[in-house]
Amino acid sequence: MAGNIFGNIFKLTTFGESHGPALGGVIDGCPSGLKIDLNAIQVEMDRRKPGQSAIVTQRKEPDSVTFYSGVFEGETTGTPIGFLIHNTDQKSKDYSHIKDSYRPSHADYVYDKKYGNRDYRGGGRSSARETACRVVAGAIAKQILSEIKITAFVSSVGKIKIDKHYSDLDFSEIEKNPVRCADSATALLMENHIKDIRKEGDTVGGIVSCIIKNTPIGLGEPVFDKLHADLGKAMLSINAVKGFEFGSGFEGTKLKGSQHNDSFDKDGKTKTNNSGGIQGGISNGMDIYFNVAFKPVATIMKAQQTIDSNSNVVEIKGKGRHDPCVVPRAVPIVEAMAALVLVDFFLLNRTIKL
Amino acid sequence: MAGNIFGNIFKLTTFGESHGPALGGVIDGCPSGLKIDLNAIQVEMDRRKPGQSAIVTQRKEPDSVTFYSGVFEGETTGTPIGFLIHNTDQKSKDYSHIKDSYRPSHADYVYDKKYGNRDYRGGGRSSARETACRVVAGAIAKQILSEIKITAFVSSVGKIKIDKHYSDLDFSEIEKNPVRCADSATALLMENHIKDIRKEGDTVGGIVSCIIKNTPIGLGEPVFDKLHADLGKAMLSINAVKGFEFGSGFEGTKLKGSQHNDSFDKDGKTKTNNSGGIQGGISNGMDIYFNVAFKPVATIMKAQQTIDSNSNVVEIKGKGRHDPCVVPRAVPIVEAMAALVLVDFFLLNRTIKL
Amino acid sequence: MAGNIFGNIFKLTTFGESHGPALGGVIDGCPSGLKIDLNAIQVEMDRRKPGQSAIVTQRKEPDSVTFYSGVFEGETTGTPIGFLIHNTDQKSKDYSHIKDSYRPSHADYVYDKKYGNRDYRGGGRSSARETACRVVAGAIAKQILSEIKITAFVSSVGKIKIDKHYSDLDFSEIEKNPVRCADSATALLMENHIKDIRKEGDTVGGIVSCIIKNTPIGLGEPVFDKLHADLGKAMLSINAVKGFEFGSGFEGTKLKGSQHNDSFDKDGKTKTNNSGGIQGGISNGMDIYFNVAFKPVATIMKAQQTIDSNSNVVEIKGKGRHDPCVVPRAVPIVEAMAALVLVDFFLLNRTIKL
Amino acid sequence: MAGNIFGNIFKLTTFGESHGPALGGVIDGCPSGLKIDLNAIQVEMDRRKPGQSAIVTQRKEPDSVTFYSGVFEGETTGTPIGFLIHNTDQKSKDYSHIKDSYRPSHADYVYDKKYGNRDYRGGGRSSARETACRVVAGAIAKQILSEIKITAFVSSVGKIKIDKHYSDLDFSEIEKNPVRCADSATALLMENHIKDIRKEGDTVGGIVSCIIKNTPIGLGEPVFDKLHADLGKAMLSINAVKGFEFGSGFEGTKLKGSQHNDSFDKDGKTKTNNSGGIQGGISNGMDIYFNVAFKPVATIMKAQQTIDSNSNVVEIKGKGRHDPCVVPRAVPIVEAMAALVLVDFFLLNRTIKL
Repeated sequence: MAGNIFGNIFKLTTFGESHGPALGGVIDGCPSGLKIDLNAIQVEMDRRKPGQSAIVTQRKEPDSVTFYSGVFEGETTGTPIGFLIHNTDQKSKDYSHIKDSYRPSHADYVYDKKYGNRDYRGGGRSSARETACRVVAGAIAKQILSEIKITAFVSSVGKIKIDKHYSDLDFSEIEKNPVRCADSATALLMENHIKDIRKEGDTVGGIVSCIIKNTPIGLGEPVFDKLHADLGKAMLSINAVKGFEFGSGFEGTKLKGSQHNDSFDKDGKTKTNNSGGIQGGISNGMDIYFNVAFKPVATIMKAQQTIDSNSNVVEIKGKGRHDPCVVPRAVPIVEAMAALVLVDFFLLNRTIKL
Repeated sequence: MAGNIFGNIFKLTTFGESHGPALGGVIDGCPSGLKIDLNAIQVEMDRRKPGQSAIVTQRKEPDSVTFYSGVFEGETTGTPIGFLIHNTDQKSKDYSHIKDSYRPSHADYVYDKKYGNRDYRGGGRSSARETACRVVAGAIAKQILSEIKITAFVSSVGKIKIDKHYSDLDFSEIEKNPVRCADSATALLMENHIKDIRKEGDTVGGIVSCIIKNTPIGLGEPVFDKLHADLGKAMLSINAVKGFEFGSGFEGTKLKGSQHNDSFDKDGKTKTNNSGGIQGGISNGMDIYFNVAFKPVATIMKAQQTIDSNSNVVEIKGKGRHDPCVVPRAVPIVEAMAALVLVDFFLLNRTIKL
Repeated sequence: MAGNIFGNIFKLTTFGESHGPALGGVIDGCPSGLKIDLNAIQVEMDRRKPGQSAIVTQRKEPDSVTFYSGVFEGETTGTPIGFLIHNTDQKSKDYSHIKDSYRPSHADYVYDKKYGNRDYRGGGRSSARETACRVVAGAIAKQILSEIKITAFVSSVGKIKIDKHYSDLDFSEIEKNPVRCADSATALLMENHIKDIRKEGDTVGGIVSCIIKNTPIGLGEPVFDKLHADLGKAMLSINAVKGFEFGSGFEGTKLKGSQHNDSFDKDGKTKTNNSGGIQGGISNGMDIYFNVAFKPVATIMKAQQTIDSNSNVVEIKGKGRHDPCVVPRAVPIVEAMAALVLVDFFLLNRTIKL
Repeated sequence: MAGNIFGNIFKLTTFGESHGPALGGVIDGCPSGLKIDLNAIQVEMDRRKPGQSAIVTQRKEPDSVTFYSGVFEGETTGTPIGFLIHNTDQKSKDYSHIKDSYRPSHADYVYDKKYGNRDYRGGGRSSARETACRVVAGAIAKQILSEIKITAFVSSVGKIKIDKHYSDLDFSEIEKNPVRCADSATALLMENHIKDIRKEGDTVGGIVSCIIKNTPIGLGEPVFDKLHADLGKAMLSINAVKGFEFGSGFEGTKLKGSQHNDSFDKDGKTKTNNSGGIQGGISNGMDIYFNVAFKPVATIMKAQQTIDSNSNVVEIKGKGRHDPCVVPRAVPIVEAMAALVLVDFFLLNRTIKL
């Protein structure tokens, strides 16, 4: 209800503020018998962590995870998995200037109005630092879904975008550049653009695309909990996301049915895939693919006019360490959220037939 | 879990197949003391019902609602509201040809694979006829949210689109044309285009835009249940939807932070509204606006190649009565789903402060 | 949330008032592929229905069920099962005397205070007539759990009780007497006692016992959703229930651990069964058994002093047709609720191992 | 679903095993603006903690709570409250003897069968040590419900019981004796009995009674989520509980309606209170009272025959430090669970009227 729990069967609860002692989470409903690969979890954490390259925030956090329960002798037991990620490099005094001021396009104002008080340090609960917990849970979900391959990458930064179909991309390029773009030439343009933007003290938006291969047929529930509806919610719940489209997406609205329909082959596969791997809310075994739009980060190093809690007009300027562009670090978050959605439907699907 | 329940506090459960005896629903958690305006409910039903104009399906259904409980002497009692909408004009034999064949880009194939059997008549549960129940519940939600004004309209059909900002539109135009376009000149182009498409035996997609005014500050929960995440899920759960964006949306990814940020005025309102009325997942009192992408309807009157349940290649051609373009009838559905999301957060918001 | 939904995976929503046009329900999450035995459902309905014998209320209701969805050609499809039970013999004018008066030990007063208004006819939503919907869903749950044998019976009426261990009873006696007592000699005493009580215009309480055989090992979740906790909640949610105990129950509190502990045999069965088939909240394969305490029905045909909605002291006397003792008709309700709890854990159990 | 989450609006998730590094929990949905009294939380923890007196287990745990989030400058912010309770005195080697053996009437056997593996140390997740987290959350719930007074006490140990109505007891006696009995003379008998039992290497059961005063009218939802049904589930979810009754309880089944009904006074109070403060599942403003039956602790210091995981018959004898009688430490747990149920309905009740 209060928004900090995700999933139905494989259920993740997260807690923690950006500048508190730690963030953490609990996974309830993880099946027993999974040999947890801790290293694989840390690999995902490292893809999301601050300070990983020159084009992201320079806050230094190891983002190492301490597990407290649910794993015994390396294997899950079916009991809840509790974990903490300690905050080690918070610099709370960077935020004293926003104690009483509302940063434009941040959550400061609405939190104050909604709750009557807030932990203003670093955005508190509204900070994207919370997504570290999602990455932990997503990494475990991926281990359960070992046959499904989820790959996200940056497909645009500002106006610079990849102009190829995903099937023409070499996904092994993604982790070779700090932008996590699947095309090396475009990656270089993006990287330089982000560096320029940073020098201006500004920020820029971008798009993350995600391709999911080898999804079994039948995931997703009809009507309200369609697979793409839950994927959409999952993505829209990530900080700074403004849009979601799957398959033919917004462009598909311009097509005729005779152009858009995906004809079947004898094996049940379709010749085209405008459906994006999902029909009637249920996976059909084809590639699932979707795009996630991220706005430019709100914290900029330029002066902006705003108001304080007494409605006085004041000037504000970003301090602290911030990302000039969020999409490189968003890639593992998009994958994690996709994994959480899939694992939930994967487990639920065991219950639907006699 | 199984996908037929929507909401947390104001909770709608729906049931029923396209060609069964009736569809229906139960609203659990509707507050007591609401004087139900039955006429207002029927007005919404009429906006969604088939046969309402020359550019929609010619199935004739009065879509009148029978209430069984939860209302006493015209007023809600706080107990669950059960209702039925009888199917009166189903022509099941129109569907005998798809008993064993899978219509391209329909849910036939995945339902069979997921459940092992299906009610093939008219798409059964996967039919958009189910949305009639959402409109009933949405109409009641609107009555609770009497101060909030939710307005949806068609902003594009195929490649024809409105080229104005929503603030320059006259919403009183919407119900004056069968397309439900907010611009009368564009409406005419759209209507003619849909008629042409129908003559071809084809279908076409489009976009529905929605503007919500007078939302109180504070609706939406942080982290997973952000207001726009739940709106996105709600819209993506509507049949044929392929994308959702709010505020600056996909275009906003191209902007810099300094261009995108919404500066505050002294009254807490913002000078611009790229945020689309939602910051950090919580309404900020400004207009909420979003776009919903609908693909072209899958059933076309042209011959298509497909397979049957024995994997034989067969030819299929639409029979029955279908929409050449779904967006005119989707307008009230978009509004209904928006109302359901808002009423849930509206009630939940009463619980968050001491 | 609002209390009209039961279960997590196999989810029952009910609606309807005692004197409205109909009661009904929706089952969401019933697995596909179940050949529904409609006759078996009606058999259960007949065990609960009014007017079935001389010792229960003489309201005449066939309590026949109309299904609207979720079943196609006799088999469940995995989509929600919607159903209605029409009220045919409501006599609302019997209740005009309680429109403004609060019947002692009824829900009239608290409904008025909680909701501000109420459907006073026959208790409205608080009537035990609602349990008819539970029996429908429970009958379907039983068909899924075809190997599990759930048997409830009346073990006491007032001070008259069966003085034998359940293993010494012949369960085939239960349906042979109108009390549904598992011991024919005791049944006769009970029946006569109920008749005497009725003549007095009074009512009497009693206990229903329930034995569940052939439960697989492993049903129930640790910590909050223990099998016996959910059974307890299910039973306590039945109208007029005041207590629940399983296994050794309240008497077991007097024992020492060395007396109470159930030693294992080589096959994993236990020599004794004070645990009542449940250890740590999880079924261990032994018989599950529990007792459910029902208070005397509140509506009596004797004059009682009470207050009206203006706090005036008034005299009230039962009208209408009421049960002198609720336990004979409660037997199928107890079984239905037990089946609903078990089917939910049975389906959930498919998700807990890798 | 997996059983580690309690509540709907004020939602507690717990995790942790008896002999892992820590237990913990997350409260999602705690209203903002509560000044947290940390001392009051520790007082409750001290009432539950091991080693507090000569008649409980001698494991030494300070059971101090570390909060990680959700509280800022001493006040709740509306964001989730995450906390840990470190295990400091676990002696895992005490449990090597049960690695492959199943203790009679423990959860060892069913966990192994259900999950395929288990953390056998100290019972792992099935240990009553988990209830420490409930006491933390319950203590916070009590602070929200500051006007409601929840008082539990021991009313029987084995066959020794208090023979007075609760209104004749002096609740200030409860914390003055190590048994937490509300009658000092009976307390002494109980204490001596427990000491004798301990000397025998045995254990004994007992009953905890709970009285709740000043509950507002209207808490609880009709039908499935009746106030007493949720209280019953909450109590039955506590380790070792075998039964729950409220108001007249099992004894009330012997009464006639004319004896049992509670007549109204002019002020809406009732002359008697057989209803136990709850009618139709909703609080009526009178005292709520109920009894909770606890079986004797299963771990005894006497030799018992059991089986190992290879189905060999083996002898087992308790090691480690255990309670001879669980009820003295169960008193604060009963209160905590009652507070969790009440706070949830208290918050939900804000949503039910227009």
